[in-house]
Amino acid sequence: MTSLATAQRSLADPSVRHPLWPPLTRGCPVTSTEEVAYPLDIDYAYDEVPADLFARPAAHGLERWAPLLPPLAAPGLGEGNTPLVELADGLWIKDESRNPTWSHKDRLNRVAVSAAVASGARGIVVSSSGNHGAAAAAYAARAGLPCAVFTSPDAPPAVASHLRAYGATVLTVPRASVRPLMLRIVDELGFQSVSSVTDTAHTGHPFGPEGYKTLAYEIALDLGRAPAAVHLPTGYGELLFGVAKGFRELARLGVTDSVPRVYATEPAAAGALTEALRTGRPVARVPVGPSIAYAIDCEISGYRGVLAVRETGGAARTVTDEQMAAAQAELAAQGLWFEASSAAGLAGFRAHGPHEADGPVVCVATSSGYKDIGTARHAYAPMDPDWQSIKTALTESEPPK
Amino acid sequence: MTSLATAQRSLADPSVRHPLWPPLTRGCPVTSTEEVAYPLDIDYAYDEVPADLFARPAAHGLERWAPLLPPLAAPGLGEGNTPLVELADGLWIKDESRNPTWSHKDRLNRVAVSAAVASGARGIVVSSSGNHGAAAAAYAARAGLPCAVFTSPDAPPAVASHLRAYGATVLTVPRASVRPLMLRIVDELGFQSVSSVTDTAHTGHPFGPEGYKTLAYEIALDLGRAPAAVHLPTGYGELLFGVAKGFRELARLGVTDSVPRVYATEPAAAGALTEALRTGRPVARVPVGPSIAYAIDCEISGYRGVLAVRETGGAARTVTDEQMAAAQAELAAQGLWFEASSAAGLAGFRAHGPHEADGPVVCVATSSGYKDIGTARHAYAPMDPDWQSIKTALTESEPPK
Repeated sequence: MTSLATAQRSLADPSVRHPLWPPLTRGCPVTSTEEVAYPLDIDYAYDEVPADLFARPAAHGLERWAPLLPPLAAPGLGEGNTPLVELADGLWIKDESRNPTWSHKDRLNRVAVSAAVASGARGIVVSSSGNHGAAAAAYAARAGLPCAVFTSPDAPPAVASHLRAYGATVLTVPRASVRPLMLRIVDELGFQSVSSVTDTAHTGHPFGPEGYKTLAYEIALDLGRAPAAVHLPTGYGELLFGVAKGFRELARLGVTDSVPRVYATEPAAAGALTEALRTGRPVARVPVGPSIAYAIDCEISGYRGVLAVRETGGAARTVTDEQMAAAQAELAAQGLWFEASSAAGLAGFRAHGPHEADGPVVCVATSSGYKDIGTARHAYAPMDPDWQSIKTALTESEPPK
Repeated sequence: MTSLATAQRSLADPSVRHPLWPPLTRGCPVTSTEEVAYPLDIDYAYDEVPADLFARPAAHGLERWAPLLPPLAAPGLGEGNTPLVELADGLWIKDESRNPTWSHKDRLNRVAVSAAVASGARGIVVSSSGNHGAAAAAYAARAGLPCAVFTSPDAPPAVASHLRAYGATVLTVPRASVRPLMLRIVDELGFQSVSSVTDTAHTGHPFGPEGYKTLAYEIALDLGRAPAAVHLPTGYGELLFGVAKGFRELARLGVTDSVPRVYATEPAAAGALTEALRTGRPVARVPVGPSIAYAIDCEISGYRGVLAVRETGGAARTVTDEQMAAAQAELAAQGLWFEASSAAGLAGFRAHGPHEADGPVVCVATSSGYKDIGTARHAYAPMDPDWQSIKTALTESEPPK
């Protein structure tokens, strides 16, 4: 199956079209303003989508959905096809920790690294606190391209091991140096960035979020319908946008009868999308306080998030660290260990609803507990083999809830 | 679909049959000797297997294969249905890190915890350096049972975080106290052990290895045939046995034309199965030296391993730490990050072959790099933003192989 992608379109004005190549990673050159570098969207020849595309079962590897993705020029790692686990009656967790690098970011990177390969990039560059960097490094390695990962020296030690594992050049330079160095790597070395290179707002790679559409396709196939609502941890809003777009495509193609409301959950320590929607602006910038949700505590939002919420009738809300920790604990007590930011979707649902059921509710959990800020901070201490205390611990403690 | 399991049979003499319940976790009471507590195997009403069982696609959750498994009384986590990733022409990696707790052990624990639930156990007990304990804790939590995990104080710090995550009681008592305390927990508190409770050899839970059969089912479905050879990291040989049994069942049921040779790879620092096969004994005990393969450096073997190798025409071989590290690096350079022991299957294939191709070769990679002994030992150091050194690193280094 070949890609039906036809063009890049401005998200500010879909009538402004650009050729599919090269990927416009700095935003739309026509519609962007001084305030916002508007991201590009990908258009497809929707009337040529094979009739049986959604009749066949899900499968590993985004090539399963090739007609509705940009060309997949980079080899894959069997990404996607993650399970939907029922947490309670009608409440489902989409377990994205079951991707090749144990986060949802593999879906974006399969597509974005493919764009880099197809457009002749000499390497991949990415700025990330963890998941995005690891995924970019894995797909770059798989494609045989060098990869530069700008990351924080504060990354959890297990994540530091992960980022190093694929042979990428890990750069822990001061924050103020990141953007200028990224641009030099792009401009002077011919690398392609799979994270945002613009200053004024989050723009991001135009092709990358297309990978997230496959989450929607899989959920609809598993449920046999569109859910009523989807709750997502939200940083820059790329995941939010991709999932919303995927569900809108399904309705457009007649695969489902409806589009779920898409709810963004941001950490209360940041909340730029919530602020943008509150003030009616395309993007917002907010002060960022301390948070356990280091994967999504973003200073600026992206216009993609505004569109995803608006076009599905959803909302953006914030949750406190305590609410995320409670959702994380609720999931772990059911055998599902995610990092705190990954539990934000469930935290948002628990805190803000809506709780009236007019169909299944899906919370997307994005990444493994191995990425958590608190992981690997404490080794074990040896214990005395005292029977009475062991017996007490095993018989008088509360059972897991 | 309901289970077609009919009985427990002694692996020493399959004509010795016992009822399916209760699970005989201490080995066959009839055929065991002072030297070996022979494990039990599960028999099925094979002539009642639905004709379309292997015609339908794979799916998450072992219930997909319910007729050929013991009853799945414990709720699942969408385990299994992991991808087969092509590493080179005809050489495939079965990526078991893509299970709910990121290792193959989820397959065993879904089945073994189900046996505990169905037989009225008051809790789960397990002795494990990592993967097995995390999986047992997750499935126990999911089933609402308390769980005791005996583990080594030397576990990597990220694995320590993982073991704690599901609310299990983690016990880091001295090694000599483990077995007596496990037996007290079983006998006095009514818990069921999902790891071996016998002294004389590895016996293990009779139902657990059945979960590993599903690996064979998935591989055969993905390839459209049985592979020529399967290479597996081997500790106590439960995975080895389950995979071999699954392929033998497929041939018996006419789903495939042949049974692959099953090759066990053990760390050279241990190698009990290799020793048992060399000396023609049902089990062997060996001294254990230092090794990076902490998940499989076992002092004793189990009779299951001998049977798996013998009945498929395979072999057991050892690999050095250097060979495992090289295989681990080969996989990481392709975007696949596993712990060192998980790379033992590929290491065994690279070191010992056979390399002549009479069909696809599958190496099972058991667990995520997050479980590696070296993970999370080193955080980042901040770097200077020096362009020349960054440029050199990105343009003059060897590309990933």
